[in-house]
Amino acid sequence: MTYKLVLIRHGESQWNLENRFTGWTDVDLTDNGHQEAVRAGKLLKDEGYDFDVCYTSVLRRAIRTLWTVLGEMDRMWLPVTHSWRLNERHYGNLQGWNKAETAAKYGEDQVKIWRRAYAIAPPPLAEDDERLLEQLNNPRYATVPKAEQPRTECLKDTVARVLPFWNESIAPTIKSGKRVIIAAHGNSLRALIKHLDGISDDDIVELNIPTARPLVYELDDNLKPIKHYYLGNQAEIEAAMAAVAKQGSAKK
Amino acid sequence: MTYKLVLIRHGESQWNLENRFTGWTDVDLTDNGHQEAVRAGKLLKDEGYDFDVCYTSVLRRAIRTLWTVLGEMDRMWLPVTHSWRLNERHYGNLQGWNKAETAAKYGEDQVKIWRRAYAIAPPPLAEDDERLLEQLNNPRYATVPKAEQPRTECLKDTVARVLPFWNESIAPTIKSGKRVIIAAHGNSLRALIKHLDGISDDDIVELNIPTARPLVYELDDNLKPIKHYYLGNQAEIEAAMAAVAKQGSAKK
Repeated sequence: MTYKLVLIRHGESQWNLENRFTGWTDVDLTDNGHQEAVRAGKLLKDEGYDFDVCYTSVLRRAIRTLWTVLGEMDRMWLPVTHSWRLNERHYGNLQGWNKAETAAKYGEDQVKIWRRAYAIAPPPLAEDDERLLEQLNNPRYATVPKAEQPRTECLKDTVARVLPFWNESIAPTIKSGKRVIIAAHGNSLRALIKHLDGISDDDIVELNIPTARPLVYELDDNLKPIKHYYLGNQAEIEAAMAAVAKQGSAKK
Repeated sequence: MTYKLVLIRHGESQWNLENRFTGWTDVDLTDNGHQEAVRAGKLLKDEGYDFDVCYTSVLRRAIRTLWTVLGEMDRMWLPVTHSWRLNERHYGNLQGWNKAETAAKYGEDQVKIWRRAYAIAPPPLAEDDERLLEQLNNPRYATVPKAEQPRTECLKDTVARVLPFWNESIAPTIKSGKRVIIAAHGNSLRALIKHLDGISDDDIVELNIPTARPLVYELDDNLKPIKHYYLGNQAEIEAAMAAVAKQGSAKK
């Protein structure tokens, strides 16, 4: 028995476009991001993919991407499970800042470390920061004890909170034979892929996932990857990955 | 302890506009129907409503209405349960026909009976009808044994399949203290309201529910209604109800 798991990063968001650090800030897709999701849904349908269960974060850019895909696939009625554990990496005090502001305040070298080091997190949101108060009082996080909610995260932290959800919810669902799609974020998907493929701490931060491109993992009985591939035009995908990598050096 | 339950009928659909019997046919909202849902979501937010759990059918016009409401309320992450038991009344062999075709084939008086009689159903879909084959093979109904899937329904039949879902899923959820919204259809909501308010077989068919207007039921400990009311401008709602009633005499 082998399983197919489909991962998809959300389409372009408003703050991708504005060159700002997003993290847990709940920004929506741009029109372009919406169109990316439409194309992903059409592609999945055309390639004969189908699902029984969907997982996504509690952030609208991922939910909107999933909904759009499901609309194109005529699968709006599928069950969807939301979890904060699939959220983007929390970007701490950098959330809402643009690259220029951030570099001016902390220096280019420091910002590069926060973006690329596996275990070094940006400065946390202060306990009286309005952005944190909004988060702590937001009903979508009501099930997460306030003391345990992140104030910032490095990728290592993101891995630590994604994996329990994978192990306890998603993996058993896949093993039960249900066909699963996960619509999430650049870093929560990195966290998952690090686990699946056993990628090192140093290498994972260099992995670039293009927006709204269905990424198929074929998994064996023990959910070890046999192979993985992006659906669609491969030259286009290479270009999209290169664009993400380049974007990473100029902005988040 | 009293509870507030919010019911909402989907916004205008493409076949409402085209004057065709819809039933289980999976048509989408018109732009106008989408805007109706946007207004409903803004209204619920402005009036301070909030929810913990959402229920809807497996038909896209109801799901799209719910998603739009949740988007306006910043509640896209809420859990949504889909059930075929909240679907519109199955309209049998009339599904897809327009009023003129139907009257020409069966006569005005007969059509009026099918629309308004509580216990008389339109002719069923034939066992080899492509519309039935599409339904029976549609994965959204995979959990419903094919022999038990409706080929047509009168309102009495709709009541009989809505109530088990109310009793077994929705009612216990409300009693647990969760705030519930149900986005459904003219006749599945009639079925529910008949049960809640103890409306007679003769009177229920005269109840007109305007599209995409939040209808609040305040319920006592035993889920008996204390009162109910539509949110929004009452004169507008009266006009919308009158329009539905009038529409009923000229088309579905």
